Amino acid sequence: MGDEEGLACGVHHALGGHSIWEHHDQQEERIYMDYNATTPLESEVILAITEALHDAWGNPSSSYRPGRKAKTIINQSRENVGRMVGGQAEDILFTSGGTEANNLVFHTAVKHFWESWEEAEKKGQEKSHLNGKAILPHIITSNVEHDSVRLTADNLMKEGKADVTFVPVSKVTARAEVEDVMAAVRPTTCLISVMLANNETGVLMPVREICERVRSLNKQRPAPRILLHTDAAQAIGKVRVDVQELGIDYLTIVGHKFYGPRIGALYVNGPGTITPVFPMFFGGGQERNFRPGTENTPMIAGLGKAAELVSSHLPQHESHLRDIRLYLEQRLQDVFGMEKIRFNSHFPGSESLPNTCNVSILGPGLQGQRVLSSCRRLLASVGAACHSNRGDRPSHILLSSGIPAEVAANALRLSVGRRTTRGDVDLVVEDLWETVRRLEGQD
Amino acid sequence: MGDEEGLACGVHHALGGHSIWEHHDQQEERIYMDYNATTPLESEVILAITEALHDAWGNPSSSYRPGRKAKTIINQSRENVGRMVGGQAEDILFTSGGTEANNLVFHTAVKHFWESWEEAEKKGQEKSHLNGKAILPHIITSNVEHDSVRLTADNLMKEGKADVTFVPVSKVTARAEVEDVMAAVRPTTCLISVMLANNETGVLMPVREICERVRSLNKQRPAPRILLHTDAAQAIGKVRVDVQELGIDYLTIVGHKFYGPRIGALYVNGPGTITPVFPMFFGGGQERNFRPGTENTPMIAGLGKAAELVSSHLPQHESHLRDIRLYLEQRLQDVFGMEKIRFNSHFPGSESLPNTCNVSILGPGLQGQRVLSSCRRLLASVGAACHSNRGDRPSHILLSSGIPAEVAANALRLSVGRRTTRGDVDLVVEDLWETVRRLEGQD
Repeated sequence: MGDEEGLACGVHHALGGHSIWEHHDQQEERIYMDYNATTPLESEVILAITEALHDAWGNPSSSYRPGRKAKTIINQSRENVGRMVGGQAEDILFTSGGTEANNLVFHTAVKHFWESWEEAEKKGQEKSHLNGKAILPHIITSNVEHDSVRLTADNLMKEGKADVTFVPVSKVTARAEVEDVMAAVRPTTCLISVMLANNETGVLMPVREICERVRSLNKQRPAPRILLHTDAAQAIGKVRVDVQELGIDYLTIVGHKFYGPRIGALYVNGPGTITPVFPMFFGGGQERNFRPGTENTPMIAGLGKAAELVSSHLPQHESHLRDIRLYLEQRLQDVFGMEKIRFNSHFPGSESLPNTCNVSILGPGLQGQRVLSSCRRLLASVGAACHSNRGDRPSHILLSSGIPAEVAANALRLSVGRRTTRGDVDLVVEDLWETVRRLEGQD
Repeated sequence: MGDEEGLACGVHHALGGHSIWEHHDQQEERIYMDYNATTPLESEVILAITEALHDAWGNPSSSYRPGRKAKTIINQSRENVGRMVGGQAEDILFTSGGTEANNLVFHTAVKHFWESWEEAEKKGQEKSHLNGKAILPHIITSNVEHDSVRLTADNLMKEGKADVTFVPVSKVTARAEVEDVMAAVRPTTCLISVMLANNETGVLMPVREICERVRSLNKQRPAPRILLHTDAAQAIGKVRVDVQELGIDYLTIVGHKFYGPRIGALYVNGPGTITPVFPMFFGGGQERNFRPGTENTPMIAGLGKAAELVSSHLPQHESHLRDIRLYLEQRLQDVFGMEKIRFNSHFPGSESLPNTCNVSILGPGLQGQRVLSSCRRLLASVGAACHSNRGDRPSHILLSSGIPAEVAANALRLSVGRRTTRGDVDLVVEDLWETVRRLEGQD
């Protein structure tokens, strides 16, 4: 199917009952099952953004009314975003997105390490536990993080600014296990960053347990304090996320993963007071100097609205997502048979996101990318969108999670959304069935 | 006038003939003359953003059609933004705003210095011209830059990462003079950053002449190459800005100063090939790894539309702005008399922005902030919005530009926009006249 025809097809994700892309041919209607890559915006979110574009364009730093109006909207959003994750308004720093939020945490941890170090030196504290080696801040993360964590850590190593341990996830549970994380701690460890939910397998990591152990360790050991970060990009809007329950210092929030706009925020437990933040930018003093730059009022308004919707509807959303995903898995099993498919999102003892079905249809010539590009309706991916150009190489995340290479090569990440229906599932499974039959016929 | 009443007042800036804020009392209609702080969005820009919010929410990194659609919009915007400043699409990196763009340049310059240094060392090059002193990269900027340049430079000094010379602007011309900039060059100079137009005085800096001199110097001297940056935030949309004519390496673009959204871009002359860029963030590979993070498609769509409007209409806009500003100055002179006012935007031999009238109404008790807060209609500022909380202290930019302290204390920065009318000017001047009469009567 060429691009010209492609343009005539519609995509069905039915916001408020109507398709957002026009479709001319009902037979060719596309069905979006890539909600882990990005989500459409809720109509209420678009409304909040549009209203702010029209009415709240004043500079939030201006002291006259239009400026104050913008400031009020921003503060309201800050409250909504804080409430969504169980935190206070003042714990929320708006950023351009998750990538910036994650980078800001790593940047902060390294600076904080050296500040603690200098303070300890001033106090003449014992550092024999460091063995006199050349000192570098040490960071612990997992080997299945998003690129905005993985490559940030890589770069710190490459520049000689930090040592990093990438704790391998268990090949049985696909989780970064608490004991493995704790075993990696060194006297110089200053940050542990483990994602809340993996974007490909959907597996939920034991972040609460890690935080509990580390907080108790922090009380016993000398500086530096180990800072605790989790990238909650994939978890928010799908499962309950509460910073108090987690006991986390920093939590990354990404609007476009929960039907919000393409900005983000960083939750910090008491920024600058309880928990350090060292800015990456310098400028006009916005976000209490932690993140200067004239505020993107309309996007912030949208983020606040999206957060409010999560706070109000999470239980219904979660239950709907789970219902649809379970139905999808059931239908795949029914149609293809148990021996023909493998779920790469089922790991013994691990909980996972309600909406994520990572599945391989076994057999030669059924590589994920090949299947997807032959599907007539299904829009999905084989992994993180950032890696969409990796060709047929299997996902390193699946391989790290213990999925055999020949299974991983065929993986399809199907992630359903708030308005995906059982009817959509039926059409997608039929589409996959026909595609596989066609591809196997060709071989 | 209390806040309650304030909420009943409208603000007039007539986009397409109708006020954007509702107003219930024509007598109290507010008139916005703070277009250097921020501008409303053009209705066509809002339309481009809204369309993208609805129709282009796909992840631009996804390989299926909705992703490609978003990618196409981003590429079209990149072309429009490039064209607006006389550059190529591939020279444009989208950023969250001007603050990020400016910080990225300073970050890059320091890294580039050390890279050049290591290369020179490998080649065993002579460095006797450095006199064996402890080496630090050296940066030259002016003493009237926006905080996102000034504080970024300050921080590099504070952290011991760079030496900075803040070249004082002439107290006669208010410009950073070419000879003063050139006299500050050292063997270790790696960046010169001088704004294109000052946000308070409106004065245009001799950036083209500085670039010409430095490019010729770069050909003669050993590494490091001196990189050339200008923050064009206040110039774009008001005067012609052309990177070829300027001969600049980096140019900062800020959407909300030219009726666009709250994001920005950095023009780089051949990023990564002709001119270095060292990313501040690491992540999913977007913006060719120079600035990763899932693209904010709707805002980028809006920036592209705003750029297209500048490209198409600049001569008319510039001529209208000049006409209105000249009329404003004339009316102020007529009403207050020559001896009662001073223009802080008129400097002998300097050109300035067509829209910026920085004026002091002389006399005790007429401090800028006091006058503005007593005005019934006028919405303006006494300087950069970021400094709106500085109280009655006169602007350091005006003082640096040779304005006497007692004059600077009374300064009002009136900046007019594309749709400010002579009628608006008449009302504002009347408002100022009545305000001054009232305030002087109280004293």
